[in-house]
Amino acid sequence: MAEPQYLALDAMGGDFGPSVVIPGAALALKKHPSLQFLLFGKASAIETELLGYPELAARSLVRHTDTVIASDAKPSQALRRGKGTSMWQALEAVRDGEAAFAVSAGNTGALMAVSRLILRTLPGIDRPALAGQWPTIHRPSIVLDVGANIGASAQELCNFALMGAAMSHSVFGIDLPTVGLLNVGVEEIKGADEVKQAHTWLKDVQLSFDYRGYVEGDKIGQGIVDVVVCEGFTGNIALKTAEGTSKQIATYLREAMSSSLLTKAGALLATGAFKILKHRSDPRRFNGGTFLGLNGIVIKSHGGTDAYGFASAIEVGYGMASSGIIDRLTADLASLTARLAVIAQVPAAEASVGDGAGTVKPLQPHPQS
Amino acid sequence: MAEPQYLALDAMGGDFGPSVVIPGAALALKKHPSLQFLLFGKASAIETELLGYPELAARSLVRHTDTVIASDAKPSQALRRGKGTSMWQALEAVRDGEAAFAVSAGNTGALMAVSRLILRTLPGIDRPALAGQWPTIHRPSIVLDVGANIGASAQELCNFALMGAAMSHSVFGIDLPTVGLLNVGVEEIKGADEVKQAHTWLKDVQLSFDYRGYVEGDKIGQGIVDVVVCEGFTGNIALKTAEGTSKQIATYLREAMSSSLLTKAGALLATGAFKILKHRSDPRRFNGGTFLGLNGIVIKSHGGTDAYGFASAIEVGYGMASSGIIDRLTADLASLTARLAVIAQVPAAEASVGDGAGTVKPLQPHPQS
Repeated sequence: MAEPQYLALDAMGGDFGPSVVIPGAALALKKHPSLQFLLFGKASAIETELLGYPELAARSLVRHTDTVIASDAKPSQALRRGKGTSMWQALEAVRDGEAAFAVSAGNTGALMAVSRLILRTLPGIDRPALAGQWPTIHRPSIVLDVGANIGASAQELCNFALMGAAMSHSVFGIDLPTVGLLNVGVEEIKGADEVKQAHTWLKDVQLSFDYRGYVEGDKIGQGIVDVVVCEGFTGNIALKTAEGTSKQIATYLREAMSSSLLTKAGALLATGAFKILKHRSDPRRFNGGTFLGLNGIVIKSHGGTDAYGFASAIEVGYGMASSGIIDRLTADLASLTARLAVIAQVPAAEASVGDGAGTVKPLQPHPQS
Repeated sequence: MAEPQYLALDAMGGDFGPSVVIPGAALALKKHPSLQFLLFGKASAIETELLGYPELAARSLVRHTDTVIASDAKPSQALRRGKGTSMWQALEAVRDGEAAFAVSAGNTGALMAVSRLILRTLPGIDRPALAGQWPTIHRPSIVLDVGANIGASAQELCNFALMGAAMSHSVFGIDLPTVGLLNVGVEEIKGADEVKQAHTWLKDVQLSFDYRGYVEGDKIGQGIVDVVVCEGFTGNIALKTAEGTSKQIATYLREAMSSSLLTKAGALLATGAFKILKHRSDPRRFNGGTFLGLNGIVIKSHGGTDAYGFASAIEVGYGMASSGIIDRLTADLASLTARLAVIAQVPAAEASVGDGAGTVKPLQPHPQS
């Protein structure tokens, strides 16, 4: 596959704007020296940051924008007033084939709404899903939807399975990803109706993933499947609950380790172990949520992350763009739609609700490069 | 308040039956020497265990039953064939006022179905909720529903708020418990429709709790409210996700601590800290889910717990029975129904769907005692 050339960064997104985006881009460039960057935002602020990274500056084009989408803007406001902002222009660069993918640490709801407007959805997809990386005791899993939408039909859950599998293949290089449906038990009789219906269908469709049935909440972190599928309300609650539990135990550990002189001495000796522990559960390594189902690649970085975390988000986009995920998704979704029309009598017309333009942007060097 | 006298134990429930239930009861008796026990199950097995606990034996009546409800029985099977089993008879003892509460480590679905049949629901309640204790960095919180049902209406979420608050008062002695609704964001515009509707109502009803608005998944473990309200699918996923994350980090910690001679030495010195850590996140301390909304007190112990965990479940029932929670719930539910009839135009008739017998069993000594 071709390496992505240009990528579009919303330099103003997130809590820290260019002071995190630019050093993050510099880290990504160290790893992939052939990358080139389109940087959208306030030119003076971006150029000031670039002074510290001459190699990045040499491989970047700065595109000045006067406005930004506020971190608390509602999606509807972003759609009405977002034109010309750094986020909007970064997404237009993807739409126009100037950039292979876009990364923004801006407002999630706005990014979702504007992405959908500018890039449109793939044939068969009505609403994109937000896919997150979930650290497990093995390799990371992909969990989706983690909050792009509330609720999902059985058909949408099947789409999520397929899209999550494509992402697992792209980002982690897994040939036949295993997929599970998040449920309250592993027995066939349990669960919400849509989940049970999706389970029946997923057992029957033969596509580019290995469906393993139901997965309970306590098994996600065990990494028993590569992709965990759920609707967005549940997925968001699960993801945040895991983050919260992780912090809670870190608090317990810190307090326990400073409870006596002896434990303090032990903690000092075991400094190396705490470094390993910190590294394994470092959320920056798993930064980079992806809107799947769009006709283009958009990565959402956490608003509060640092340069290291922002570089992780770029890495996710790089993997997806390099592997040609949009082509794969378009083909897979067509197969799924056809298959469900047979096994589930889901009419092809209904199954392919969506914007459906379906034209895939080739990865191409920037015209001015 | 009167101390509960007799309590009913399903001695055959759980993975270990009497070999956990009897030592668990003995631990509870040490803490509350006035307790008396009705022990339901295979008499020979129970009596063999009681040989090791003469003080408990002196305060117990053994009620022989020939049959048990299998751990994998479906609720419908339990209802059809459960009569005469140890679980069934323990619940009948509560219904008949022989026992102040029942504890079973048996099959959750069966316990829910049989409890509902035998005890019936309180006026205003159609489906009971399962409330769990959630360890936080402060005192434990109550989370409900953690899996008795899939989905909940806005009205049911309001009932959960009220019932969770009553439990928080009973078990932890909190006068005006704080209550939050689990949601994917704290903004008013976000969330499932039922959750948003319940939010509007809860802000308006003035009852025996302090409603604090939305709570996100990562805040549960911070203990920012005493009661977290959600429908059962989400609650079950959240609870199990927290358990899984806790285990995952324990694995990381163990592996990190044995990564070198130095870290091993550190771990040895810090043994005391690991003991504190283990104690703070020990699931046995938080064992004891409660079916709320029944006309009687039923505690579900984890099937795989040990005597210490089973004693924790008894302690939950003890707190609830001592505080007269059923009286409080009956009164509170009537107030809520009346209040919602005014502010939400929920017709009183609709709001009070349920079995509705509403007769409250007084805590009374066993007739033979």
